[in-house]
This record gives sequence, C-alpha cells and structure tokens, in this order.
Amino acid sequence: MVKGIGDDCAVITIGGPEYLLVTTDLFVEKVHFLMDWATPESIGAKVLATNISDIAACGGVPRDAFVSIAVPEHIGLDWLEAFYAGMAGLARSFAVNVLGGDTTRSRSDFVANIALTGLVPVSEVLFRHTARPNDLIVLTGPTGESAAGAEILLERPRVPPDVAGVLVRAHLEPVPHVLQGRILAASGACTAAIDVSDGISSDLGHICRDSEVAAVVYEDKLPVSDALRQAGTIMGKDLLDWILNGGEDYVLLAAVDPDGLSGIERSFKEHGLPLFPIGEFCRGSHMELIKKDDSRHILKPGGWDHFK
Amino acid sequence: MVKGIGDDCAVITIGGPEYLLVTTDLFVEKVHFLMDWATPESIGAKVLATNISDIAACGGVPRDAFVSIAVPEHIGLDWLEAFYAGMAGLARSFAVNVLGGDTTRSRSDFVANIALTGLVPVSEVLFRHTARPNDLIVLTGPTGESAAGAEILLERPRVPPDVAGVLVRAHLEPVPHVLQGRILAASGACTAAIDVSDGISSDLGHICRDSEVAAVVYEDKLPVSDALRQAGTIMGKDLLDWILNGGEDYVLLAAVDPDGLSGIERSFKEHGLPLFPIGEFCRGSHMELIKKDDSRHILKPGGWDHFK
Repeated sequence: MVKGIGDDCAVITIGGPEYLLVTTDLFVEKVHFLMDWATPESIGAKVLATNISDIAACGGVPRDAFVSIAVPEHIGLDWLEAFYAGMAGLARSFAVNVLGGDTTRSRSDFVANIALTGLVPVSEVLFRHTARPNDLIVLTGPTGESAAGAEILLERPRVPPDVAGVLVRAHLEPVPHVLQGRILAASGACTAAIDVSDGISSDLGHICRDSEVAAVVYEDKLPVSDALRQAGTIMGKDLLDWILNGGEDYVLLAAVDPDGLSGIERSFKEHGLPLFPIGEFCRGSHMELIKKDDSRHILKPGGWDHFK
Repeated sequence: MVKGIGDDCAVITIGGPEYLLVTTDLFVEKVHFLMDWATPESIGAKVLATNISDIAACGGVPRDAFVSIAVPEHIGLDWLEAFYAGMAGLARSFAVNVLGGDTTRSRSDFVANIALTGLVPVSEVLFRHTARPNDLIVLTGPTGESAAGAEILLERPRVPPDVAGVLVRAHLEPVPHVLQGRILAASGACTAAIDVSDGISSDLGHICRDSEVAAVVYEDKLPVSDALRQAGTIMGKDLLDWILNGGEDYVLLAAVDPDGLSGIERSFKEHGLPLFPIGEFCRGSHMELIKKDDSRHILKPGGWDHFK
C-alpha cells in the first residue's frame, strides 16, 4: 500500500510497472438519489460514473467494477435490469468489466455499492498532497451545471426545455473525465489532481490542505456554460454560487507546472477537449477569490467572505 | 480478468506471479444481523471475516479491505468506533489493512459493504469448477455450530452456558480458514474449494454443478463437535440438519486428489489443524448421502430425500 485514506483512491503496489487503484462508494436511495427524478438506467450509470471519476482523478484507467446491491420489495426485476443496463452502457464506454458482487435483501431503501479497480503507471499517479506554490490551477470542464440541474428537478422553475435538459442531464448522467486525467498524468507536468464532487471551494480546499499551499481563483477565468447562464438569469440565481459551491460535476481540478501548461493545452486541443486555467497555488494558508470588480474574498468550503 | 461471477472471488491477472483476488459483500441491519444479538465489535469482525473467507476459499491471502458504511440516526459514534475496533482486531490477526471507503447517511438501517483484495500465486488459485471424479471431499472444520448458535439466540432454549457460548460464538465470531486454504492451495493436490457459507448441501452442490461431477457424503465421516451434540440432545434437534444445511460456518470444503491426501493431512497435522475427509466426488448428476444405517439418500441444497 502506497497511500490509503484521503485520496480519491487507495494506491496499491502490485510489483509491476503499475499501481493498482481501488475506490468504493455506497449509494442509498433517498440519500443519494430519488426514484421519482431519475430513471433506473441513469442511477446505474451515475453510481459507476462517480467511481470511474475517482480513478480518473488519480490519472488511472478504470478496469473491473464489483457491484453489491440490497433490494427492497418495492424494486422489481424490470427496474433492476434497467439499472444494470444503464451501468453496462457507461461501462462499455470506458472498457470497464462489471463483475458480480453481492445481492441481498433490504427492508426499506435500495442500496448499491461499487468497488472499482484501476491501473496507473507508477511514475504517473496523481495525488492530492503534491501541489506546489506557483503551480497553476486548471479545470477540465465547467462546474455548476449539476447543482443547477438538481435545483431544476427540485423546484421546477420555468426554464426552456433545452436549457433544463442540459443541466438535468449534467446532474443525472455525469461523464467522468478519464481521458483528461490520463493526459494530465502522462504529461509529467501535472503535480496534483482531484475530481470536483463536492464543489470547487471544497475540493480545491482538499488539495490546499493536503499540499499545505494556498490558492487564488479569478472569477473572470471560471468557465460558465451558456445553459448555466440562461438558467441563472431566469431563476434569479448567483452563478458564482453554483460554479464554486455546486457539487457532482465530476470534472477534474488539477495543479500544473506553469512550464508544462502549453504542452498540456496542446494535447487537450488535439483531443478536442477544453481546459481552463482558473488561478494559481501560492504560499500561505487560505484560498482567495478575486472577483471581476477586483474585490478580494476569502474562499472557503461552501462560500466566500469579503477580505477584511 | 481470468474468472468473474460465480466463484468466491473475481480472479484478475495483474501481470506478475500472482493473481489479484477481489470479493465484496453487503451487510444490511435486520437482514444479516440484529443489533440486539450482537455487539458492534462482533458485527464489525464478522463482516470482514466473511470476506476473508472468500479469499481463503480461493487459496489466497487477504490484503486490503475497503469499508463503506451508511449510518442511520440511531447509530452513535460509540457504536461506530466499536464496530471498527472489532474489524481492526480481526484484520490484525490476518495482516489485513483496513482502508477508508465511503461513509454516508442512511434513513433507516445500518449498511456496511466490504470490498477485499487478496493475492494468490497463479499456479495455486482454487476454483469451484475444477473438481474431478474420484477426488476426495474434505472439510477443514465441523459445520452446524453457527446454525445452532443462531437458533439459541432466537429461541433461548435451556442450554448450559458453556455449550451455548461455543455455538453462539461460532455464529457471531467466525474465524476464516486462511491458513487452511493456503495449505490446500500450495499442496498441488487440491483441485477445487469453496467456503461453507450456505451449508454443505448447498456449497457442495455449487462445486458439483460447476465441475459437472456428482458426490457421495458419508454421515459417519461428518465431524460433530461436542457442543453441537449436547445442544442437539437438549433441543431435540436432528444434528444432521444443522451439519448439512446450516450455513455461515466459514470452514472450507475442498476436492483433493486421493494420492495427495496423506501429504495434506501431514501438513494440517504439523500446524495442529484438523482435516476431515467426508466423501468423494464421482461421475453422475446428483449428490448422495449415505447414512449410518447404510440407507442411501439424494442430497440436495437444504435437505435430503430417501433414494427411490
């Protein structure tokens, strides 16, 4: 074992050129998903997607998924088959084998646990604790869409169907950034990474705490999708709250050596993938947000305060 | 991947002299255990023990355990700490690292999932589908004690405390047979194995079905512990029902080449471990039970019928 609790995956030596990565997540009906909102296909895909995202954050490729489920009486065979079909669809996209696990009864809620293995070359594994002052902060995609999608499902505001569709899909059917993680890991210039599951303000905080660095994020560099902007206007929401504090986007947030940025940008461009530098790590003890009006704010998990 | 669903573990190639074994089990309060019966320590130990037993059945040594839990409001921090302490105690006995997993809320019942890895030399892995006619059937310990212990907890019969203690402990604190599995695997003479989690009649049936062989079991060769015999007399129970159909004993049931039995017996003896030959595999399509009165019965999962 190289590293245990705390990173997205456990990183385990297996005596070859690669580390074994293992991640596991438990999903409980009505805590993590509502049957009314989501199809069984999308629930099956999302529980696998969140685990694949953990492997991606370590720079690895996912390999074998072990699925355990506890099934209450209100779940029928049709529902279960659709749940597995959704999972199998996403698994095929990422060449993941879905292997059997345990199936048991539940008295009340549906429960699913995924344990997923992956592999990463020993010299390329990405951790959370290795970011350095002066490294740039990059995002592999826009954030906030999933949180906005969840609010649309909950509050049913009058949002155009195409806009609502994009955001709800971002919430229900996130696509993990495996290729993005591999490009970062293989570049030799990425020093740390995490997937944005709790929101930028929380997940950047994890890297800062584990790496003992501070960070500055610029509002005007944060990517904002068109759908998010339209929903924000209609729903009267502060976009920055969604973007910084919304979770479950499953894009990657990474630390990159400034000298290596152009090479990484070129690789992303070759694959048709976007990459967004949003700030930099620095010495210090807190995260800072610089707004478009140049005002400075302390950024902390879940929000920000005006700098005193 | 070498073998997926069906065996006790998934068996995965990792490009070295060993296979990676992975097993996963989901435990749900009131389905798998009752808080009233068991201490949190024993629950934590047992959920790990059942997974270690799956690794033992493949001839492997357990390595890293990943624990996910869903915690309802009625579970306090003290209970959780005791749950982990019980797991850590058993983990130390078998040199297993308990690594973090996922912790989440539950609306109703406590849920725990363990994903456990293990390693086994490529040439020694034990499967269920490789038993051959004429191989002997061996057990690494007596069965039925766990089922008797569960009945004692449920029915509270008047059984002497020392007898009840042995049987209840067999149910609540099973000890997986890792060393026994390693001796069998390293012997070169063990052709198949399974752990007795559902009862001999079911688990022997799994080997017969997967290996396409039949089997004969002799009542007079089945090990019977003193505690089980005493409880059977007091409770007016048919011992053979407990022994053949009781589950959760977590001893190993294995197929052994007759020419290799004496070597395996010698190794077990050197380690102070018992080994019980209870019958043999043969050509055919059903399992047979030969009772002490020489009467012949069809043995099937969960019971037996007089031979017609």
